[in-house]
Amino acid sequence: MTAYDSENIFAKILRGDIPSHKILENNDVLAIMDVMPQAPGHALVLPKAPSRNFLDADASTFAVLFKAVQAVAQAAKQAFEADGVTIQQFNEAAGGQSVFHLHVHVIPRHTGVPLKPHTGAMADQTVLADHAEKYRAHLS
Amino acid sequence: MTAYDSENIFAKILRGDIPSHKILENNDVLAIMDVMPQAPGHALVLPKAPSRNFLDADASTFAVLFKAVQAVAQAAKQAFEADGVTIQQFNEAAGGQSVFHLHVHVIPRHTGVPLKPHTGAMADQTVLADHAEKYRAHLS
Repeated sequence: MTAYDSENIFAKILRGDIPSHKILENNDVLAIMDVMPQAPGHALVLPKAPSRNFLDADASTFAVLFKAVQAVAQAAKQAFEADGVTIQQFNEAAGGQSVFHLHVHVIPRHTGVPLKPHTGAMADQTVLADHAEKYRAHLS
Repeated sequence: MTAYDSENIFAKILRGDIPSHKILENNDVLAIMDVMPQAPGHALVLPKAPSRNFLDADASTFAVLFKAVQAVAQAAKQAFEADGVTIQQFNEAAGGQSVFHLHVHVIPRHTGVPLKPHTGAMADQTVLADHAEKYRAHLS
């Protein structure tokens, strides 16, 4: 497997070199808004420990990582009055991965509303800030 | 949230009431072939503890569940010479869920090959048995 590259965008976010819309943070995990959401409230949960993806991750991080994923998924359902939640995690480009630091997608879903395609278009920063605030209100 | 229904198909598989193509089993987790695969080698990892989905799962199961998911994902890459792996977990019908016992999809991916749609068509049992054997050879 290709080695971890510490210049990936999530590593920069974790270092605070570039900003993000934070939902939840503890010693081990950071959850942020996806800036190219496939549905309103599309969030990402990142372990702080570096790994390229799930394949090379240290299994000792899974308990805390997925506890955070669950908390974000439960908050997603409440904050966005969602009917369901889709969780996705992509490994390597063929698996759908575009940023090579392990991350888990948490997407609020509504009945009959398909996921938007991943166009690469950035969402409005004001909307993302508002959605992060909605999450935080259900996570505090 | 709707209560857990112990008559769902995965509960029946876990009880041994109906057969499955087993990949990996321990005290806490069972991994089996998805009988309606979206790509060759499409596997499912189920915790034995009952929960409807990820939203109501006991977080104490996450370490062992995702350690198994990782093992299956690593084996998927080797056994199917995959370029990547897509992991998905669906919550409630709006989130993509069709069987209401928590399960994690592990799908080997090849560059340029999209996921097949979920048509409801059953795969050939001989092929599923062969794919389960491929997994077991990389998990023993």
